[in-house]
This record gives sequence, C-alpha cells and structure tokens, in this order.
Amino acid sequence: LASSNLLLRILSAAVGLPLLALLVFWREPWGFAAVSLLAAALALVEYGALTLGPGHRGPRAALVVIGTAFAAASYLRPQMALLWAMAALVLLSLAVVLGHRDLADLPQATHRLALAGFGVIYVGGLVVGLPLMHRDLADGSLWVTVAVAVTFANDTGAYFVGRTLGRHKLAPDISPGKTIEGAVGGLVVGVAFMFIARATFFPALSAADAAIIGVAAGVLGPTGDLLESMLKRAAGAKDSGRLIPGHGGILDRIDAVLFVGAFVYAYAVYLR
Amino acid sequence: LASSNLLLRILSAAVGLPLLALLVFWREPWGFAAVSLLAAALALVEYGALTLGPGHRGPRAALVVIGTAFAAASYLRPQMALLWAMAALVLLSLAVVLGHRDLADLPQATHRLALAGFGVIYVGGLVVGLPLMHRDLADGSLWVTVAVAVTFANDTGAYFVGRTLGRHKLAPDISPGKTIEGAVGGLVVGVAFMFIARATFFPALSAADAAIIGVAAGVLGPTGDLLESMLKRAAGAKDSGRLIPGHGGILDRIDAVLFVGAFVYAYAVYLR
Repeated sequence: LASSNLLLRILSAAVGLPLLALLVFWREPWGFAAVSLLAAALALVEYGALTLGPGHRGPRAALVVIGTAFAAASYLRPQMALLWAMAALVLLSLAVVLGHRDLADLPQATHRLALAGFGVIYVGGLVVGLPLMHRDLADGSLWVTVAVAVTFANDTGAYFVGRTLGRHKLAPDISPGKTIEGAVGGLVVGVAFMFIARATFFPALSAADAAIIGVAAGVLGPTGDLLESMLKRAAGAKDSGRLIPGHGGILDRIDAVLFVGAFVYAYAVYLR
Repeated sequence: LASSNLLLRILSAAVGLPLLALLVFWREPWGFAAVSLLAAALALVEYGALTLGPGHRGPRAALVVIGTAFAAASYLRPQMALLWAMAALVLLSLAVVLGHRDLADLPQATHRLALAGFGVIYVGGLVVGLPLMHRDLADGSLWVTVAVAVTFANDTGAYFVGRTLGRHKLAPDISPGKTIEGAVGGLVVGVAFMFIARATFFPALSAADAAIIGVAAGVLGPTGDLLESMLKRAAGAKDSGRLIPGHGGILDRIDAVLFVGAFVYAYAVYLR
C-alpha cells in the first residue's frame, strides 16, 4: 500500500508538474490564470467541507461561488479589490441572513458566516498573487517559478533537517512533526535556493531580493502550513481532500504557497 | 428611567449630529476621515468583545489594530486594497499561529481567527466607503449626506409602518420587532426620501440614481441591521456596547449605514 501510494505520488507529479511548467512559461497569461482560479474553486470546496462540515449545502455553495468570483474579479481588476471585498461580504451576509431559519442554530450560523468570509479572503484573496505577477511583471514566469520553488525548497529543507537534527517541537499540538531545527534549516535552504536562482536563471534579482524572499518564505511557508493544519485539526480531518492521487487534497498542496505567493507578489510589484 | 433615557438620547444626538454635519460639510476631507476611522476602531473593540468574548486580549487587540490599519490603508490607497487584505490575513494568521499554545482550544482558536478575519472586512472594509466618496467625488458631502439620511429614512419608515400595519414577522428569531410590512414601508419611505433629495438639495441625482439607491437601502439597511443582531444574539448580548449615552453601542448605530454606505460608494464611484 505504501509503495503504491508512493507510485501514485510520483505519477501525478510526473503529469502535473510539466503541465504546470508549460502554463507558467506560456506567453499567454490566461492559461495559468485559469488553472489558478480552478485551484481556488477546488480549494474552496475543500475549505467549505472542512470548516462548515457536512450538510449546509447552501452556505458551502455560496462560499465557492463568491470566493471564486472574488478571485476572478481581483485578477481582472486588482485596483478595485476593495469593491470586490465589499460585494463579497454583503452578498455572503445576504445569503446567510435571508437563508437563516433556525433560532437554535444562531451561534453556529454566525460562525459559518465568519468562516465563509474568512475563506473568501484566505483562498480567493491570496491565490491571485501568483497569476497577477505572472501577467503584470516583465519576468512574470520567473517570479512565479521562484515563489513556487522557494516554498518547495523551504519545505524540503525543513523536512530533512528536522529528521536529522530536530529536537525541539515547533507547534506540537498543531503539527507534531515540525521542529524548530527543521524550520531554521528550511529557512537556510530557502535563502540558499534564492541565491542559486540569482546566480543561474534569474540574474535580475538583487542580493537583497534573494535574502528578503528567502527569509519571508522561511516564516510564511510554515505559517501557511500550520494555519491549514489548524483548520484540519479543528475539523478532525487528516487530509483536506482526495483530489490529487497520493497527495491528499489541493489545500494541503497549496497552503504554504498561498502565503509565500501573496508575499512575493506584494514584494515584487509594490515593495521592491 | 425611560424618560431620562429619552433625554440622554436627545442630548447626545443634539451634540453629535451637528458635529458630524460640520465635518461632512467641512472643505478638508481628513476631519470626516478621522472620525470614520475612530468609529471603525471603536466598532472593532465592540465586535471583538461580542464575538471573541471576555479574555482573549491578544486576539482582540490584534483585531482592533489590524482592522483599523486595514481601513486607514484602504482609505489612503484604495487601489492597493488587495495588498492590504493579503497583509491583514497573513498578519492575523501569524498572530494566531504564533500565539496559540493550547491543544484543547484548537477549534475555538480557529473560530476566533475566522471571526477576527471577518471583522476586519466587515468593519474595516465597509466603513471606508463613506470617507472615500466624501474625499473623491465632486459632490462628496452630498453623497455622504444622502447615504446616511436614506438609511435613517428607511429605518424610521420601517419602524412606524411596522408599528401601525405590521402583521408578518420578518426574522422572528433574529429580530422579533421587524415585520415584512415594516420592511416594505421602509423601502417606500427610503425611495420617497431619495426623490425629495433630488428635488431639493441634490439635483445632480438622476431619477434612476434615486430609485436604485432607495431600493438598495431598503434591502441592505435591514440586512446590515439583521447581521449585527445575529452577532449579538449569538453572543447573548442586547446592545453592542454602551458608548453613546442612551443609544447603545456604536456598532448598533452604524450597522445599517455600513452596508448602505458601501453600496452608495460602489454605485456613485464605479457603477453610475
């Protein structure tokens, strides 16, 4: 079973990663944007199942539709995102207030509204960083590559350093496998990756760019990972879903890159 | 006691409303902006006390600081609101993940995070509509006046029509006093007010403007009111706070105008 799971992981990565790379380096921006929005919609389905639980089909459908629409609108007109956030909040509230029928359930209905509103910004708001920098920056494909790869480098570094040197638990109640040594190792590997990227395929990065993004990924990647683990633990689930064969749910795959991608977008477009 | 409460209401309205009108018609935009941000901060204090409960000082402080900063940043640079929403979500998540220490409390910590994230957009995101249109539109003072006054007209119309003709409860479990007849009456009074505004002090409004804003206020005002009532009922509270003598909390005062103001901003700046 374990080896067939490993085989499945390798097979879906072997199909998925080249496809993703093709879209990232395709000259047209809409292919990668469409895949990002599709990922957001599927992640919202998982987020809704995790946080709102079984039943509650109305709120879950409203969450997926409003969250994906928020992401699409923010991609098409990012400078109008305040308007999209206002509209998302008013529409979600209308859906909950008009759809609500049961007094005994009022605290739960309020929690569901808050969880749905949070999900719209968490998934729909953070996910658009990657396709926006892909479309709007001269080196968009390279920025996306760097954002995804530094997250992977950080995660992989943390795993191996944690396995060999890990002694002190980072957040035992949320994610028992994580250690402080692993987190520090992951940060170092992420920074090292950024300087390798600068020395090889992305010379337009300054040394400051490489250091800042490497350190930020070392903090924000594990934060995104822990946040998603919190959501799962709170819901009593192990995986966010079963979408990718052998890889658990899509939210499990993108939890860290949601945070790192949003940071790299903010840094590359506004702070640099 | 009832008459001293009425006296308090009249007195604080007699002091507060002229002050507010002065700021709305003052040539400088920052006075009204400062009062709006102050109102947002106080409303976030109330929202935090209502939804997060006593204790939890850390999350409540993070909510007030991050929510008010989100409102201020969105006022100063509305076209960068996507960035501010990303930053608010990442910082709130960092605060909760780093500040979390107790396994047994994990589902509650997750709920608190979602409630705080929702509060940032609900209060901080919606509140900036009024100061933004005040600053950015040629007739900014008149637009703000119309947004506030149509909310008041709608609410007052609903109260008196509901008292005299009300038979069918609108949402008995959330707000037992509201009736369908009252809601319809409020909508009609709101539309009538908009046409009076157009015929008197605000001739730049078209008939379509008057009708659209009047109808929207008739739907969104009660929705904002019911949403805030839901939050209070879920928390078991009667008033959102005791800030304004005789008037309950500030969230009780601004619940409807948060929704109507956000709509009028979106309509006047983007849709008209």
